[in-house]
Amino acid sequence: MRLLLGFALAALVARAAPPAVVSPDVQPGREVTFRLRAPHAQQVLMVLEGSARPAPMVRGTDGVWTLTEGPLDPDYYSYSFLEDGVALIDPSNPSIKPSLVSPASMLHVPGPRSLPWEWNDVPHGVIHHEFFHSNVVGDDRDFYVYTPPGYDPRSARHYPVLYLLHGYTDGASAWSVVGRAGVILDNFIARGDAEPMIVVMPLGYGDPEILAEPFSPATRGLWQRNLEQFRQSLLREVLPRVIAQYQTGEDRESRAIAGVSMGAAESLYVGLNDLDDFAWIGSFSPGIELNALDGGLGAQFPQLSDEDNQRIRLLWIGCGTDDPSHLAVSRSMREFLAQRGIRNTYQETPGAHTWMVWRRYLDSFAPLLFR
Amino acid sequence: MRLLLGFALAALVARAAPPAVVSPDVQPGREVTFRLRAPHAQQVLMVLEGSARPAPMVRGTDGVWTLTEGPLDPDYYSYSFLEDGVALIDPSNPSIKPSLVSPASMLHVPGPRSLPWEWNDVPHGVIHHEFFHSNVVGDDRDFYVYTPPGYDPRSARHYPVLYLLHGYTDGASAWSVVGRAGVILDNFIARGDAEPMIVVMPLGYGDPEILAEPFSPATRGLWQRNLEQFRQSLLREVLPRVIAQYQTGEDRESRAIAGVSMGAAESLYVGLNDLDDFAWIGSFSPGIELNALDGGLGAQFPQLSDEDNQRIRLLWIGCGTDDPSHLAVSRSMREFLAQRGIRNTYQETPGAHTWMVWRRYLDSFAPLLFR
Repeated sequence: MRLLLGFALAALVARAAPPAVVSPDVQPGREVTFRLRAPHAQQVLMVLEGSARPAPMVRGTDGVWTLTEGPLDPDYYSYSFLEDGVALIDPSNPSIKPSLVSPASMLHVPGPRSLPWEWNDVPHGVIHHEFFHSNVVGDDRDFYVYTPPGYDPRSARHYPVLYLLHGYTDGASAWSVVGRAGVILDNFIARGDAEPMIVVMPLGYGDPEILAEPFSPATRGLWQRNLEQFRQSLLREVLPRVIAQYQTGEDRESRAIAGVSMGAAESLYVGLNDLDDFAWIGSFSPGIELNALDGGLGAQFPQLSDEDNQRIRLLWIGCGTDDPSHLAVSRSMREFLAQRGIRNTYQETPGAHTWMVWRRYLDSFAPLLFR
Repeated sequence: MRLLLGFALAALVARAAPPAVVSPDVQPGREVTFRLRAPHAQQVLMVLEGSARPAPMVRGTDGVWTLTEGPLDPDYYSYSFLEDGVALIDPSNPSIKPSLVSPASMLHVPGPRSLPWEWNDVPHGVIHHEFFHSNVVGDDRDFYVYTPPGYDPRSARHYPVLYLLHGYTDGASAWSVVGRAGVILDNFIARGDAEPMIVVMPLGYGDPEILAEPFSPATRGLWQRNLEQFRQSLLREVLPRVIAQYQTGEDRESRAIAGVSMGAAESLYVGLNDLDDFAWIGSFSPGIELNALDGGLGAQFPQLSDEDNQRIRLLWIGCGTDDPSHLAVSRSMREFLAQRGIRNTYQETPGAHTWMVWRRYLDSFAPLLFR
């Protein structure tokens, strides 16, 4: 007899396995207990998005390691367990943060319906998953498109478009799955606090080789190519597809670009060098490569001058104060913009290099667009 | 200083962790080596979709457990590691099979481009992710819609629709992510071997409580309600949305329903009891509950008679020969259909209760539809 998945696998695993553990276990007071059965492990740590350092879990006599954190602010958090140095997804939790490199578990600490990322009983948009062959990059790739509630491709109504970019190690689904961009927009639009808009979430790798080669002085050339090929693919491959397939405004005033981390570097690089195409630019915790590429910021934005203030409807930069390396980039960028005489909206807020910060930035940024 | 995700987390984990292991490691001869670092584990087994039983891995002196399988047939396989009884996702593999209960790792053993599920340089459809509140079930839920290459909501062309249902423990994304339904259809349509069609992939739980209550004699009532509420939600909530939002044929001749396992029971239950709405029905490895609900098959299909042969364009049933419990259901169903004088296409094929079987069934079934 062969192994049967589904019913039969469940039965088999149930026979093989000791009693199931519950994890994560969110208590009404927002304390959260994490549990991992690992009877023979010598050390288990819990790595929680936004926490200062991995926290030791404590082994019970039943071989289950436990840690209670909190009360935690209502939010979505990613986390993993470090079992004797190996980062594990919580085997008791089916909710997973996707990643091209290191998926993790997802924890939802529910909060009031008024929080931007909470699901509400309002009309919902649709997320479309598109595929194409990139001649610029030389691979097959995808992008996601959020269309707002009431969007009707058969109507004459056109919508402005926000291009929204993920960070390093994430994929094109990150903003909708982890960043909850669709939910945040649904809520805004229902309240009338943001213009109904289309959000395009492309894959952010101009050269996917960077996934194997983190940024360093030795990989600068690769990372510069990543930036430039990303721009070429976005402008020559993704934009035309979006224009052809969706009811979008085609002028720069109805086009924004924003992103996080690597995507925040890309949004500055693409947006400020292509003001013919974009009037609204957001940069959330910009990527450290921006500062360190050859020639520095001046070489990345050679044309930028105070005359561009007439065309920039919004240049919004934010970074967490507990995110030192990206904060340094944000401050350099601010200083550089001051030298060139470019107006911008700049903020430093509590938080680290996390999606908790970036969901709040989208919440701050989106209502400013297209009005 | 607080923990930074992205660059900084990677750096931190790199410091904390021993050298990375490569897993799964697909060799040119299609042998596949699985590796898990677990220095203090006492037993590690590897559970591979379609294999007879969990296979023991062997510990190396470096604390890395290893197992080489194969050569494996080109295909996609899910797998997990059982470390001292705990089912783990492979921490070295970012490719994950989603599940509402037990996600697993995904392995791709590449094969010739002619295989139905292999990505080809052909036009690709779009996968749309839709959300709604179900008044029938009382929850917020989702469904996915595949539109074929060239689909244009602004044109007058309408397409036939296949409703394609997942099995127990899976979610609405299973057919597109694991079953590769979009890729299979893209390939067919490019070759002209199947009618261009829309594929709707709804969430298959009429009562999500069944996720906590596997089928047993004690939960029969719950599972009957699951079946009936699924039908009501599909017909009263999903179908009208699809008709309103997509260019679909609205007659029964342009509507099919098929599914796997629990979804195969649902496709028979919905389809054969609603021949006004469906002319084409597929049942892949039908769920064991179908046989065991109160009153047996006769009570589930009270109206069915040989007069219905005029309306059934296709009734297709298949099951793997290494899938004994579902094979028993398939054979009961075949016998029941013979008693009622209903024509059908019936096959038993090699394989167990696996997605390897179901991708092949979609490959056999889809070209027969709508022609």
